[in-house]
Amino acid sequence: MENNKIIITISREFGSGGRELGKRLSDTFGIPCYDKEIIALIAKEDGFDENYVAHMSEKKIQSAYPLTIGHQFITAMNHEAEQAIKIAIRQRKIIERFAAQGSCIIVGRSADVILEKYSPFNIFVYANREVKLQRCKAYAPVGENLTTAELEQKMREIDKNRAAYRSFLTDTKWGEKETYHLCINTSTIEIKRIAPYIAAYVNEWFKQKQA
Amino acid sequence: MENNKIIITISREFGSGGRELGKRLSDTFGIPCYDKEIIALIAKEDGFDENYVAHMSEKKIQSAYPLTIGHQFITAMNHEAEQAIKIAIRQRKIIERFAAQGSCIIVGRSADVILEKYSPFNIFVYANREVKLQRCKAYAPVGENLTTAELEQKMREIDKNRAAYRSFLTDTKWGEKETYHLCINTSTIEIKRIAPYIAAYVNEWFKQKQA
Repeated sequence: MENNKIIITISREFGSGGRELGKRLSDTFGIPCYDKEIIALIAKEDGFDENYVAHMSEKKIQSAYPLTIGHQFITAMNHEAEQAIKIAIRQRKIIERFAAQGSCIIVGRSADVILEKYSPFNIFVYANREVKLQRCKAYAPVGENLTTAELEQKMREIDKNRAAYRSFLTDTKWGEKETYHLCINTSTIEIKRIAPYIAAYVNEWFKQKQA
Repeated sequence: MENNKIIITISREFGSGGRELGKRLSDTFGIPCYDKEIIALIAKEDGFDENYVAHMSEKKIQSAYPLTIGHQFITAMNHEAEQAIKIAIRQRKIIERFAAQGSCIIVGRSADVILEKYSPFNIFVYANREVKLQRCKAYAPVGENLTTAELEQKMREIDKNRAAYRSFLTDTKWGEKETYHLCINTSTIEIKRIAPYIAAYVNEWFKQKQA
């Protein structure tokens, strides 16, 4: 039965519009799309502040991992490292729960790896630097006034951490096209224009899979 | 005017079905698709044997390039090297001629780089090893009875040469997703099923471009 579900995962470079694509596919397929909802749920169920969970979930887990260079140092890192790992595990469990519940779209969080047993359709969304910067500026949280250089630094950092997070779960590499069914460059096209055709493509893929 | 043309380029791993996709898009758009036709034209116009041109056009140009390790050696390599380069130049000119004539689809031969001034829509088609081997076996030329190992060696060799050929023309890398507008993994889907949606996607892209 698991294989009759429509599970779509969207991995994406920061600022490339993966979330927008997720929401649009969600509308077309009439199935839920989970992105920040995962963070919100962890915050709610575990009694954390949502911003804190969001922050910790984008942390580089590897660097937060306790190092064995003396007892003092381990203790100093321990709390943050433990939290980052704890949140990563919670994320994985919630993603598994969503998929168990039914068809859905998951944006980010290495859902393509976590949900492998469902044989999901895996999309990677990417764009050039300028377009991503533009998009980030347009959608910046209220009060965030980063310079272009700072924003670029943030973009790089987040993508690096996403790749690092993925490397915890699997040997295949984040962003390597072989890992995905379709890689979409959003540098020169509005997502709303192409979303219907991506949906039709994905739908056809599931039809062949279920045939 | 040049920018109102529909120029689609399809780069592809050997055996991934790029040619089939090209032919199907050609039917949908009602525009010509050039692949082996380029080889045939060079053979015809230059009075070569078609198989010879096909063979030389897949040669690794870099290794055929004359090396300066003594006069003897240069002379020994010269004829084949010259021919490979001559054919590469003829290929480029014919591709430019086709694009100048009107809307078209070009499969392979680094047409995405050669036709950059037209801002073509650039597709990359790829698949996993097993699927490519299967496809190569199904479409093997009459009389070709390669073992799986030999076929794999041929696949690798041809793809390597395609990458090398491209590196003559540009710094961007063959197969790197950033270079293309859409990267399509044909490992788990029949091309005939998805071709209509790719066509619709590409059509929408040109509509936005021309708007």
